[in-house]
Amino acid sequence: MQSPANQRAVRRHNLGIVLGHVVRHGPRSRATIAQETGLNKSTVSSLVTELIELGLLAERGTERTGSVGRPGLVVEVAAGGAAGVGLEVNVDYLSVRVVDLAGGVRHRALQAADLRGRPPEETLDRLAAMARSALERLEAEGVRAAGITVALPGLVDAASGTLLLAPNLHWEDVPVATALAERLGDAGPPPTADNEANLAAVAEAREGAGRGLSSFVHVSGEVGIGAGVVIDGAVFRGAHGFGGEFGHMTVDPDGPPCACGSRGCLETRAGLEALLAAAGEPEVDRVPSGEPVTRLASRADAGDAAAVEALRDAGHWLGIALGSAANLLDPQAFVLGGFLAPLAAHLAPAAEEEMRGRVLGAGRRMPDLITSPLGPEAAVRGAAALALARLVDDPGMLAGDARD
Amino acid sequence: MQSPANQRAVRRHNLGIVLGHVVRHGPRSRATIAQETGLNKSTVSSLVTELIELGLLAERGTERTGSVGRPGLVVEVAAGGAAGVGLEVNVDYLSVRVVDLAGGVRHRALQAADLRGRPPEETLDRLAAMARSALERLEAEGVRAAGITVALPGLVDAASGTLLLAPNLHWEDVPVATALAERLGDAGPPPTADNEANLAAVAEAREGAGRGLSSFVHVSGEVGIGAGVVIDGAVFRGAHGFGGEFGHMTVDPDGPPCACGSRGCLETRAGLEALLAAAGEPEVDRVPSGEPVTRLASRADAGDAAAVEALRDAGHWLGIALGSAANLLDPQAFVLGGFLAPLAAHLAPAAEEEMRGRVLGAGRRMPDLITSPLGPEAAVRGAAALALARLVDDPGMLAGDARD
Repeated sequence: MQSPANQRAVRRHNLGIVLGHVVRHGPRSRATIAQETGLNKSTVSSLVTELIELGLLAERGTERTGSVGRPGLVVEVAAGGAAGVGLEVNVDYLSVRVVDLAGGVRHRALQAADLRGRPPEETLDRLAAMARSALERLEAEGVRAAGITVALPGLVDAASGTLLLAPNLHWEDVPVATALAERLGDAGPPPTADNEANLAAVAEAREGAGRGLSSFVHVSGEVGIGAGVVIDGAVFRGAHGFGGEFGHMTVDPDGPPCACGSRGCLETRAGLEALLAAAGEPEVDRVPSGEPVTRLASRADAGDAAAVEALRDAGHWLGIALGSAANLLDPQAFVLGGFLAPLAAHLAPAAEEEMRGRVLGAGRRMPDLITSPLGPEAAVRGAAALALARLVDDPGMLAGDARD
Repeated sequence: MQSPANQRAVRRHNLGIVLGHVVRHGPRSRATIAQETGLNKSTVSSLVTELIELGLLAERGTERTGSVGRPGLVVEVAAGGAAGVGLEVNVDYLSVRVVDLAGGVRHRALQAADLRGRPPEETLDRLAAMARSALERLEAEGVRAAGITVALPGLVDAASGTLLLAPNLHWEDVPVATALAERLGDAGPPPTADNEANLAAVAEAREGAGRGLSSFVHVSGEVGIGAGVVIDGAVFRGAHGFGGEFGHMTVDPDGPPCACGSRGCLETRAGLEALLAAAGEPEVDRVPSGEPVTRLASRADAGDAAAVEALRDAGHWLGIALGSAANLLDPQAFVLGGFLAPLAAHLAPAAEEEMRGRVLGAGRRMPDLITSPLGPEAAVRGAAALALARLVDDPGMLAGDARD
């Protein structure tokens, strides 16, 4: 019932449906794809042919789908057809992760460094060098770079790829995507940028604790505490893309001043600095942040009173914020990521106790409190996945078609 | 490219597209509908014929769309084709509102009454009597009742139409939809039930301050404070449909005890009872709630110090909760409805000041604070709209088709 003018757009849309189906569900025959997507068999055959020509799918052996008829040829994702380059600038490290169409990790690297207050130019030079070496390796392997996405710890204008404000990094109005594009020249596709917590939630939804959940909030502790709000399986970014500033929810209105200018933000009570200070961890050791977190977890495991008490107190404040978010949004679950994950065993009981007292109808709908299985790499994983997702959604971009 | 088995489902889907288009955009020719929806002209003609046969569209004169060719016959919504029946049970009133396909109000009624602690059976008897009289009037007018939706002040399981918990009404586990269906018998379609704040947000999005906004939070004060979270134009209800319990966000962790069992919920600081008590309004006058609210607004307008101070203080606490919600969700706007609307002139300045200090990057993204133009009828308006929306989305239900 589509008018002819829409036919080409429909075909392009269907290319994405077929590629995405094989990426998500694995190798299968054209007949199976047709059955599962509701598209015509002849349409699927023609789409698969185009995806093979684009180097994104490949033939692989046969599959017998029933007791009669001839077995169908199975197509699978061409692992080397394309890869997504994820980058991350955080307060105490730079990171790169390259993932191919089959989900294989082609390259990864991490540089620990205290980047607080460093000039953006210097940090972006280092990030560009890491990106360049990843792109060179991809080129040597004959794999096309489908996209580059940078995860950033602050408010990001995703449309322009500009970091507007990162209190913990002391950056303001840094055009990260443009600056990186200038440094990379023709070496790669145009970079995009996004908030780290949003990207961590993307990774959690695709390959972590959020798989199969329709709504959850991924609360991720780096130095600050961010969140990605996932609704109907997609990250909700808000009107300006600034949603998920979980660490700046007020939990103690007359509490300590926060770096953001407010008072009593969750970060002042359960952020990494507040937590380490409360537990008596020396400040000098805070970079890279993973070391004192591991030490704090060990102390608490061993029953060290100051560590246990500091974590219980942080869990209490975290539970107040989680309770408010649960009352407002009623998500299926909260996923605790970043530094909150290795400390979850000591934080979660106090947080849950607080939530049980504060969530209206808690007996009927306490959200699950889940520990992220992805570790500190969630954001850069999400960045790589998103860099690749644009191609999976729209493989026709490789055919040189302009989007309608 | 649809397989033949899907053709019928597609046609039924397209019936909804055509009816919805005319409902939302007004009378137009078949050619204009085809152009604007992207459907084929011949398809549109056939769909319009079916909608006319169902009594939902009607022919009306002609429209000249260009300088050449013959003028097209214009079709419009058949106002009397169907109507939605909205009902509301609140803490201090019962309400009914009947709206037809053209948006005309066919019937409305309100009964003030203090329903706190009254037996649900008694209240549902009264509600059923109001519904029956509305349905009788519709029948006399020859208008089909497309649906009945009840707005309720608490946690509602929308799937079963059960009110699970309403702290201010003192109701628990009341199967409202079923109980109303029993009372109405064959007099009307099966009732559904939903949370009042969600329904008020539906009305706000369709015909109030939320028109044209893609994301906003409608914060509505009745006796409690509820909210409807609108994302991409639709109300997000959460995993169990319990989202939007804005009044139970914690603003003062060690604050006064709340009826819900928690402490320092927004309702304890800016709910109607707390506000009236702080302003020195006598308790005996609190039903119906509109009267003391009007008097409080008049006192504040006249510069009465206790009234101004009570409203400023409530605005301060409201701003803390709005600031946390803005940090988490980054909505385009907050719409203040219910008793917050007539008091907004005195509440909003303190709330905005608080938000400016607490929203990260407030200079770049302060959500607008908008006063609802719908008044206390927002929830019952939303209920009527939703009762009708099911028919508009799926007019094929009248043709006796089963949904796939």
